[in-house]
Amino acid sequence: MEENRQFRLAARPVGAPKASDWNFTREPIPTPGEGEFVVRVSHVSLDPAMRGWMNAGRSYIAPVEIGAVMRAQAGGEVVASNHPRFPVGATVVGGFGVQTYALSDGRGAEVLDLSQAPLPTYLGVLGMTGMTAYFGLLDVGKPKAGDTVVVSGAAGAVGTVVGQIARIKGCRVIGIAGGETKCRMLVDDLGFDAAIDYKSEDVRKALQKFCPKGLDVYFDNVGMPILDAALANLARGARIVICGAISQYNATDRIQGPSNYLALLVSRASMTGMVVFDYADRYTEAAREMAGWRAEGKLKSLETVVQGFETFPETLLKLFAGENTGKLVLAV
Amino acid sequence: MEENRQFRLAARPVGAPKASDWNFTREPIPTPGEGEFVVRVSHVSLDPAMRGWMNAGRSYIAPVEIGAVMRAQAGGEVVASNHPRFPVGATVVGGFGVQTYALSDGRGAEVLDLSQAPLPTYLGVLGMTGMTAYFGLLDVGKPKAGDTVVVSGAAGAVGTVVGQIARIKGCRVIGIAGGETKCRMLVDDLGFDAAIDYKSEDVRKALQKFCPKGLDVYFDNVGMPILDAALANLARGARIVICGAISQYNATDRIQGPSNYLALLVSRASMTGMVVFDYADRYTEAAREMAGWRAEGKLKSLETVVQGFETFPETLLKLFAGENTGKLVLAV
Repeated sequence: MEENRQFRLAARPVGAPKASDWNFTREPIPTPGEGEFVVRVSHVSLDPAMRGWMNAGRSYIAPVEIGAVMRAQAGGEVVASNHPRFPVGATVVGGFGVQTYALSDGRGAEVLDLSQAPLPTYLGVLGMTGMTAYFGLLDVGKPKAGDTVVVSGAAGAVGTVVGQIARIKGCRVIGIAGGETKCRMLVDDLGFDAAIDYKSEDVRKALQKFCPKGLDVYFDNVGMPILDAALANLARGARIVICGAISQYNATDRIQGPSNYLALLVSRASMTGMVVFDYADRYTEAAREMAGWRAEGKLKSLETVVQGFETFPETLLKLFAGENTGKLVLAV
Repeated sequence: MEENRQFRLAARPVGAPKASDWNFTREPIPTPGEGEFVVRVSHVSLDPAMRGWMNAGRSYIAPVEIGAVMRAQAGGEVVASNHPRFPVGATVVGGFGVQTYALSDGRGAEVLDLSQAPLPTYLGVLGMTGMTAYFGLLDVGKPKAGDTVVVSGAAGAVGTVVGQIARIKGCRVIGIAGGETKCRMLVDDLGFDAAIDYKSEDVRKALQKFCPKGLDVYFDNVGMPILDAALANLARGARIVICGAISQYNATDRIQGPSNYLALLVSRASMTGMVVFDYADRYTEAAREMAGWRAEGKLKSLETVVQGFETFPETLLKLFAGENTGKLVLAV
């Protein structure tokens, strides 16, 4: 008998989320009321930000409550509907959470055109991931053609897109990633000008080599100690985009601050935080442009799809171990 | 017999500058060549930035070379001249260094109008100090009327001016300073809305009390740990101006980075470094506006004048012990 399987937050993790931080629950499949519909979820987006949502305390979004279904972007097929814009059979994405069936009133959801791209791509390049890269780089980083753009977590979901958009905009792009395979992929498959393997190279010295005049934009997904290496290599007027700090999300000690931050003064540079939700009214415009680049073959989508809904707790940890390339998606 | 007395850099200090880091030298008073003039220095500006200039390594300005006369803004009377714009008898300021007589070709020097203000004020509110406050606050901090502006090192040379300009611009101003006397002065004499004594109060909690909706602009002169307290109290879209980090200038360990820097993301805030020299082409315009505010009684100049050229090494240390209020000036 079909039922709705769910991962609920059982406890606020200390360090990396453990099995006991989750509650696996089963419920009857919901029935849509007036103006509602039910989605059979086929793909769940796994994102570093999810780790932050598991913590208590003030942030850019309310924490997931203990006992609640874990928050996540997800996509699937509408299987029951009392909502005219989301008919049965439509493929949709939205904030459906880590569960196999979701009830929705349509807020934050949209119907997909699968003739343009497969569902996982709508969670990646054409989804929140792509929007994060697009607005973070273009609106906050403000790259000009000819600028040197450096991105950390370069082989990850956001990083791969940031680098490619920077190339499209005529920038030199240096990616920082873990391991030779990822670094080769960035250069050979995605057209990065160079890649630095932080596991085997001195990032500060490598940046010095690749950016002899300093970097103009640094898009940070990882935090310290790579943030300090970037700060040591700023061009005058450089812009640092603080998108995330995956190295710190499971930290049980105090978060490490960038001890080179006075380089901001020396280089008259700025460091600015961004949250993609602020750009919601421009998602459509951005997605259209991104889809165009994708159709022209300028923007590749990379996804790591892991099978098995019940692997969620372990699969999520791949993000923090750097085991994914591009977008990490859980297939139900 | 009159001679030129000088303090030259003898060694790069480790920690706070010691007596042995200076060389006290005597030389004949220089003779001006064609297009040159000689100033008898009466006042030397003492600034936290001088500590940075004593270090080797890349910064926003070349380090003072070992053996060179220490770099400083200073002012005095022209006593010999072959320069039409700087006649004998004129009172001038410029980068004359820590010496009692200076030879100049006029670059970076200007003739003062003592009917407007006394010489020390031209080293303070109407000099580089004032320019730093003016451009750092207005161009980088971009306060709007009604904003809450917080300034650290509030009783110091730059801080006293930042707070007063913020008041002029219709902002609520909270100063952070060391000791009850300074805090009372900020509120009673300079019109700050509140002051926090970092020596006796928990700055983070005090900021929370005084800025219940968060702070809009934080002008940082001191660095950690107060920078972290400010980061914990940002309003959405807040701007942090990194002007200096006096708490760290004598550090022999690694500089402390702001461990709360991810608040930039949560609050979509920015942290931007500034160097006053970048605004040189607008000094005249700014000085005119500042002089106007001063004439209207809206902008007070505070100076701590210490007598005795040969006290320079000890007097400089007052900055790092927080013993000055307003601008620290050495009178020859």
